[in-house]
Amino acid sequence: MNNQFQILKGNVVFTPKFGQMEILEDSYIVIAGKQVKAIYRSSLPEKYRNIIVTDYGSALIIPGFVDLHAHAPQFANRGLGLDCELLPWLDQYTFPEEAKYQNAAYAETVYRQVVAEFWKWGTTRVVLFGTIHKQATVKLMELLAAAGLGGYVGKVNMDRNSPDFLLETTRQSLADTEEFIQHTRNKYELVKPIITPRFVPACTPELMKGLATLAQKYSVPVQSHLSENTGEIELVKSLHPECRHYAGVYEQFGLFGRQPTIMAHCIHNDDAEIALMAQNNIYVAHCPYSNNNLASGIAPVRKFIRSHVAVGLASDIAGGHEVSIARAMVMAVQVSKLKWLESNKQDNFLTIPEAFYLATKGGGSFFGKVGSFEEGYEFDALVIDDSALSGSSGRDYSVEERLNRFIYLGDDRNIAVRYVAGRKIEQP
Amino acid sequence: MNNQFQILKGNVVFTPKFGQMEILEDSYIVIAGKQVKAIYRSSLPEKYRNIIVTDYGSALIIPGFVDLHAHAPQFANRGLGLDCELLPWLDQYTFPEEAKYQNAAYAETVYRQVVAEFWKWGTTRVVLFGTIHKQATVKLMELLAAAGLGGYVGKVNMDRNSPDFLLETTRQSLADTEEFIQHTRNKYELVKPIITPRFVPACTPELMKGLATLAQKYSVPVQSHLSENTGEIELVKSLHPECRHYAGVYEQFGLFGRQPTIMAHCIHNDDAEIALMAQNNIYVAHCPYSNNNLASGIAPVRKFIRSHVAVGLASDIAGGHEVSIARAMVMAVQVSKLKWLESNKQDNFLTIPEAFYLATKGGGSFFGKVGSFEEGYEFDALVIDDSALSGSSGRDYSVEERLNRFIYLGDDRNIAVRYVAGRKIEQP
Repeated sequence: MNNQFQILKGNVVFTPKFGQMEILEDSYIVIAGKQVKAIYRSSLPEKYRNIIVTDYGSALIIPGFVDLHAHAPQFANRGLGLDCELLPWLDQYTFPEEAKYQNAAYAETVYRQVVAEFWKWGTTRVVLFGTIHKQATVKLMELLAAAGLGGYVGKVNMDRNSPDFLLETTRQSLADTEEFIQHTRNKYELVKPIITPRFVPACTPELMKGLATLAQKYSVPVQSHLSENTGEIELVKSLHPECRHYAGVYEQFGLFGRQPTIMAHCIHNDDAEIALMAQNNIYVAHCPYSNNNLASGIAPVRKFIRSHVAVGLASDIAGGHEVSIARAMVMAVQVSKLKWLESNKQDNFLTIPEAFYLATKGGGSFFGKVGSFEEGYEFDALVIDDSALSGSSGRDYSVEERLNRFIYLGDDRNIAVRYVAGRKIEQP
Repeated sequence: MNNQFQILKGNVVFTPKFGQMEILEDSYIVIAGKQVKAIYRSSLPEKYRNIIVTDYGSALIIPGFVDLHAHAPQFANRGLGLDCELLPWLDQYTFPEEAKYQNAAYAETVYRQVVAEFWKWGTTRVVLFGTIHKQATVKLMELLAAAGLGGYVGKVNMDRNSPDFLLETTRQSLADTEEFIQHTRNKYELVKPIITPRFVPACTPELMKGLATLAQKYSVPVQSHLSENTGEIELVKSLHPECRHYAGVYEQFGLFGRQPTIMAHCIHNDDAEIALMAQNNIYVAHCPYSNNNLASGIAPVRKFIRSHVAVGLASDIAGGHEVSIARAMVMAVQVSKLKWLESNKQDNFLTIPEAFYLATKGGGSFFGKVGSFEEGYEFDALVIDDSALSGSSGRDYSVEERLNRFIYLGDDRNIAVRYVAGRKIEQP
């Protein structure tokens, strides 16, 4: 269907710029192959008159959600062990669960549920951590691709400060990663590998250097964690007293922006780090649910935006328990209000049009032209049928109010149809 | 069915004390009329052998949720206007919506949805603000009673600093309130009136004095708002420079604990106020969703508990957008973690067993013996069928883990059956 036209009709909403919401009521979206060609209000040009229109009536049509950071193998741990901070939580809950992914059958069982869950909640693109296990991670990519979802997926690297059952040798870790990249980089259209050092404490300098070499050799992007928890930051400082800051460790080993790079959390970065992040085009995966659950703190999103650091939203399953990126939007707004109070009302809190951008184009831009309905963007979309949202009778709502109600009150039951790169995708 | 026995079987979980979770697997709850008589593990005494057991299999049986503070007439505003702080939000969104409740037909339309929504989310007891309108407020009580839910409902009083369309004269406000109390106090078994001055800024001293007299005359409890927002607190100070603090205004007019009293929010109270609250047995309705949405701050729940102030959870519809008290539990835990960070880790954050107590017995005790399964407690319960919770295959969970997963991940779809005061209640 590469050059085929499709036309959809509905109430179209998207955010071409941070905070700028476009609302096009009763409009037609013309899609050519995978991409948005144009949007027309009220009537279609003559040249499209022969194409059948899929009319979604009064439904909303919005970009699909992008989740910039989640740990697929922690899916079965959601909602458990949340009375811990990061480091004990990793030891007691996360690592024992991840060890199970050596078992391919267990991996497939849970990964099928993970993929179905992203579909369910309207997440059309994901950036995922797997485990150290190559086979399970390839399976995850295969399932995502089969479902028609887009994503970057990483085989995790860990060669120090990790439990025996998750510890790799440096050599094996690098060899497995190279094999993983070779095996997957051209295998799927929308699912690609990403280099994934777990975080500085779990990776030796040799490993980090080797991964940087692989990233460059194969032009593969990079993801890791940065400045999530004060205990973690102290640990990094004690491991790398030679570095000015946490970001500097990734930087000195070539993992901080030479390839497109996502850093999850970024709660406690100082100004020098933020300047380096901006300079190196680092993406911040903002994970407000996780940061609350693990008592990590509130990321300074407004400051990142002001400093020209790119930000997207993320679930961080299972530090975060909610797969829904709509709920991540709400939480991002809520914690930004607490941050605003903390700053004596200096750093304005996020608005819904701003959070909507982060949830769509903000994270989507990591994938290229994704997350918007501007011309040339890959058509990832959700059709929102809010007719059954409680409280919707007795009163009229504007399209913008309906969008707000879906974001605040809706769930998977209100997502009627999902598209990824121009293709309607069915429940996996 | 007053003295009839019922026996239910399942995995029983409740919190007889703050933070102490009782988990009784595969147990029998014997209910005599409205009340819990006893719980038996594994086998029933001979004397009950003739009674048919309703076997809920592996389902969880937990106390119904209690919502200590919500504004029923703001239901249609959920998720809207949340880019404001309290005072402008009241003017721009809340007051215009509440004015519509002069129209009985509109009131009935929305109040039917409100009652259905409490049912849906497993809230079995509620403490509600209506509007200034007597007729609409009586309708709300009638609908709650018809649904079998328990509650206190207040006709709101406002005779100053309010828009013309919601302003009462002092005399009319008192006369309507007395009539409202007389009309409703003996009308329903589980639904009762409550005196409801909106908050200090909207009530003259004469009105507050008159309401205190009515509360005493009819032995009716009292609810209002306290110390939600710094702008509101400044306003109260300017209106009542003679009072040491906000609580002191209610105190001086006889509305601070002479009858059982709930104060919503209580975010910014000083130590003197907290001591007075403890002394006067004030209940705090903790509304974490609302306090985030309106950028009000984080209530010092740990400090209240330590100071022997009673606390329950609340949705504060529509400052809060979530009706679910399970989600309020999660949010209470999350914001307590941010508070813990703010206190340099001095004030421990809330755990799930603690939040579960607040959501059930904590608020329930305002209704008497409600919110627990100890002997003599009115049997309000939810039967939780978590078999369809995603991620539940592939791995076994303990009963406690299943409860955590329901609280963090579940929704109305996992609530199979609801009981209030011994009676199974069906969808309204």
